[in-house]
Amino acid sequence: MERIEKLVIVGVGLIGGSFALALKGAGAVSRVIGVGRGARNMRRALELKIIDAAGALDAATLGDADLALLAAPVGQMRSIMRSMAPVLGARTVVTDAGSTKQDVVDLARRELKGALPRFIPGHPIAGTEKSGADAAFAGLYRGHRVVLTPLKENAPGAVALVRAAWQQCGASIFEMQPKEHDVALASVSHLPHVLAYALVDQVARHKNAKQLFSYAAGGFRDFTRIASSHPEMWRDICLANRKALLAELDRYGGKLDAVRRMLERGDAKALAALFSGARDARNRWLKEIGK
Amino acid sequence: MERIEKLVIVGVGLIGGSFALALKGAGAVSRVIGVGRGARNMRRALELKIIDAAGALDAATLGDADLALLAAPVGQMRSIMRSMAPVLGARTVVTDAGSTKQDVVDLARRELKGALPRFIPGHPIAGTEKSGADAAFAGLYRGHRVVLTPLKENAPGAVALVRAAWQQCGASIFEMQPKEHDVALASVSHLPHVLAYALVDQVARHKNAKQLFSYAAGGFRDFTRIASSHPEMWRDICLANRKALLAELDRYGGKLDAVRRMLERGDAKALAALFSGARDARNRWLKEIGK
Repeated sequence: MERIEKLVIVGVGLIGGSFALALKGAGAVSRVIGVGRGARNMRRALELKIIDAAGALDAATLGDADLALLAAPVGQMRSIMRSMAPVLGARTVVTDAGSTKQDVVDLARRELKGALPRFIPGHPIAGTEKSGADAAFAGLYRGHRVVLTPLKENAPGAVALVRAAWQQCGASIFEMQPKEHDVALASVSHLPHVLAYALVDQVARHKNAKQLFSYAAGGFRDFTRIASSHPEMWRDICLANRKALLAELDRYGGKLDAVRRMLERGDAKALAALFSGARDARNRWLKEIGK
Repeated sequence: MERIEKLVIVGVGLIGGSFALALKGAGAVSRVIGVGRGARNMRRALELKIIDAAGALDAATLGDADLALLAAPVGQMRSIMRSMAPVLGARTVVTDAGSTKQDVVDLARRELKGALPRFIPGHPIAGTEKSGADAAFAGLYRGHRVVLTPLKENAPGAVALVRAAWQQCGASIFEMQPKEHDVALASVSHLPHVLAYALVDQVARHKNAKQLFSYAAGGFRDFTRIASSHPEMWRDICLANRKALLAELDRYGGKLDAVRRMLERGDAKALAALFSGARDARNRWLKEIGK
């Protein structure tokens, strides 16, 4: 790929910071400008050499940028797009890292207007429960998937630039429709996050919570790891994708009702079938992804 | 502690095998006899030097044993106790590693009769999603908790022997009432297992399951790790502790209904409060356990 002379990262946390570090590590970018609200986090991003300078959503920062990544929580996307639309350079390509896509696409159509051909919606399927610049690392995307949901208005050259940048990060690129993406992620990502948050809340609100936690072991720790994720980010994701998430929650409620009935009637056979079917499905999946 | 001359492990899997390996590693045992149903697993236990010989639930194996650990799935406990009661040595101490305690205590009262003073119910709070002799390792219990629920009939010397054995494995010993144990574990262990199995089942039954799994990432993998646990063992645990588990399932169903209402009315504030409260509680717990 052509070298990116100027990269702008809006939201220099785990996702945006790791993108910058990966491209720097690959020698694919000359200069990274960070835009963010938290002064302390921006200072860390500079100290850690994730960004070379701090900028703002203005013409000085965006007028001559080659690529801008929007990596702020989904709930801030509207105001970010609104601020950047009038100051974007004529050849600046923009992409995002939002965990939901239909809402981002809808926003982009309303807010970015003339820049829409150069806005390529994306979602890197990678992350940890950590957040902020301190959590960023160059290898985050290596071996992971990035979903792009290109628009019919997109300029082919802009799509190619975003694909190439993610490939430089070590990711594999897949294209999907925004809605198809949102339904899939509701099932394997958004629902599990809600379930993990809800379980920790349930334990924490027990009258003898302290004792309960003291008997929690490694299984509980792994199950709830995602409940240490960024609350504001996950609130925004859940609201942005609430239709698909509610459908998955309803299915899951039905599933738990079925388990409850198995327990009530002492149906050992049905429980064993459910558990071993799930174990087999999970183990097949692990084998397919080579873990 | 006094050296254990003869240790009998009934069920030489992850739990029983690791107990044997830890005591061997500590030089606390002279000879380990394994009892188990799977010929292939017993062969592996011999090859891996977890056990020195294979035995059976008979007088030759149990008549002169110092300590026997019952580490088979809870559902096999009744027939194991029934077989061993008439052949147990007059000074053989017995303990178990069952994940539920009230049912094991009830069984022991019915089946072990005269040996009851030497049966100390226990539950090591440790494990992995792996099972079988191949999964056993000496360090499994190091730094973990073992709950004992001694009976009023128990001989103090028998309790002391079991405590000392687990301490040799590197565990910390806590005493609780059986019911108190079962309620706590329903909350932080049994419910999460059911939730993980149910989620994998839900994804696996989607019409586009293959595609969904392909977009699952590290969060899904950790959340569902416990869904790779031994199905027969977990069926038995859930049935043995179904009263407490059903109560936790009902509470959880109510919690998910509350989340559903937050999503339906777009209540960003309530969602953020739930998520950040859960994150804070989890992070406090991790800090307390030094992780």
